Amino acid sequence: MSVGYPLTLRRLIESLSKIPGIGEKSATRIALFLLSKPEFCETLGDLIKELPYKVRLCKFCRNLSEEEICKICNDDTREAKSLCIVENPVNLFHIENTGIYKGYYFVLHYLLSPKDGIGPKEIEMDKLLSLIRKRGVEEVIFALSPTLGGEATISYILQVLKDYPIKVSRLACGVPMGMDLQFVDPLTLKRALLARELLKEQ
Amino acid sequence: MSVGYPLTLRRLIESLSKIPGIGEKSATRIALFLLSKPEFCETLGDLIKELPYKVRLCKFCRNLSEEEICKICNDDTREAKSLCIVENPVNLFHIENTGIYKGYYFVLHYLLSPKDGIGPKEIEMDKLLSLIRKRGVEEVIFALSPTLGGEATISYILQVLKDYPIKVSRLACGVPMGMDLQFVDPLTLKRALLARELLKEQ
Ligand SMILES: [Zn+2]
Ligand SMILES: [Zn+2]
Repeated sequence: MSVGYPLTLRRLIESLSKIPGIGEKSATRIALFLLSKPEFCETLGDLIKELPYKVRLCKFCRNLSEEEICKICNDDTREAKSLCIVENPVNLFHIENTGIYKGYYFVLHYLLSPKDGIGPKEIEMDKLLSLIRKRGVEEVIFALSPTLGGEATISYILQVLKDYPIKVSRLACGVPMGMDLQFVDPLTLKRALLARELLKEQ
Repeated sequence: MSVGYPLTLRRLIESLSKIPGIGEKSATRIALFLLSKPEFCETLGDLIKELPYKVRLCKFCRNLSEEEICKICNDDTREAKSLCIVENPVNLFHIENTGIYKGYYFVLHYLLSPKDGIGPKEIEMDKLLSLIRKRGVEEVIFALSPTLGGEATISYILQVLKDYPIKVSRLACGVPMGMDLQFVDPLTLKRALLARELLKEQ
């Protein structure tokens, strides 16, 4: 499709096509848009080039950070006894935005998946355990997606923590707020029934 | 949504969101993907930065080119008497890929649209006329979309060319190959009827 374009444009289209979710058609559209905006190319190119140098993982929680220790880990007013385990920074900020949770976090970046070669080393269990010790954590909250990978990861970490004097919980599973019951899948419905909330005793 | 991310990441997300067709969600997804690929960031950043310096418009036909004169204009084996007028480089390569057309091109980059401030100056009529003279063009073929802007542009250029001894044609309008007649809009159908092809006389 991009055969006739000048080499630089073709190379850019090819590069952009490597980004998941961007096909050759979108890549061509983006490249032609960039071509019409020289100053924007300068800014965007610099931002992309400096990204890996400026953003790294926080030494403690492995959240994205421009400093060695991220803003959340540096905030002494948070509840040190509570640690929330999330899969990725997107989910961390998703929870942060609820305004409900005041403790610290640990970001796994992966869910366990032996068939993809993701084991305990990839999720940096040693860093998790040393953070738990450092903060004197008393409650670990799993905020992982209730998927196969999420469940496997929870089982594994739970096993590792079994001799620690730590309370462990996970996000409630159930019917999403506002969703019509007819669209809820049977597994979720089963779970919501088993975990039903008591409203009035007897 | 990206409030909690490090500044560099936020600035990149904001920049990417300025590209038409990329919303904040896609921009965030792309930025996080880039973050995981430091070498790719280097390559892509360089490509974007050098794009406006390496790719320019051909002096003759205004097609994209890395040289002052593009490969097509530099190809002496093409039919000099025929000039195809296209809106943009995408459409030029679209026609080129049919393998049918062997003449030269002229790229307008805009269609006339007085309300958007696009007049004869923007479509560089003087460059078109000097190219026609230079090549001794005998046939001009309009390969513009049959839209309001396309029709206005054809009318205008046709008017300018009226005293030139040049044959002028345009792409045939009609029912697209393979399309079920029930889905063809009435205007196209009307046009296809008026321009019907003769298969057998009497
Ligand atoms: Zn941190
Ligand atoms: Zn050219």
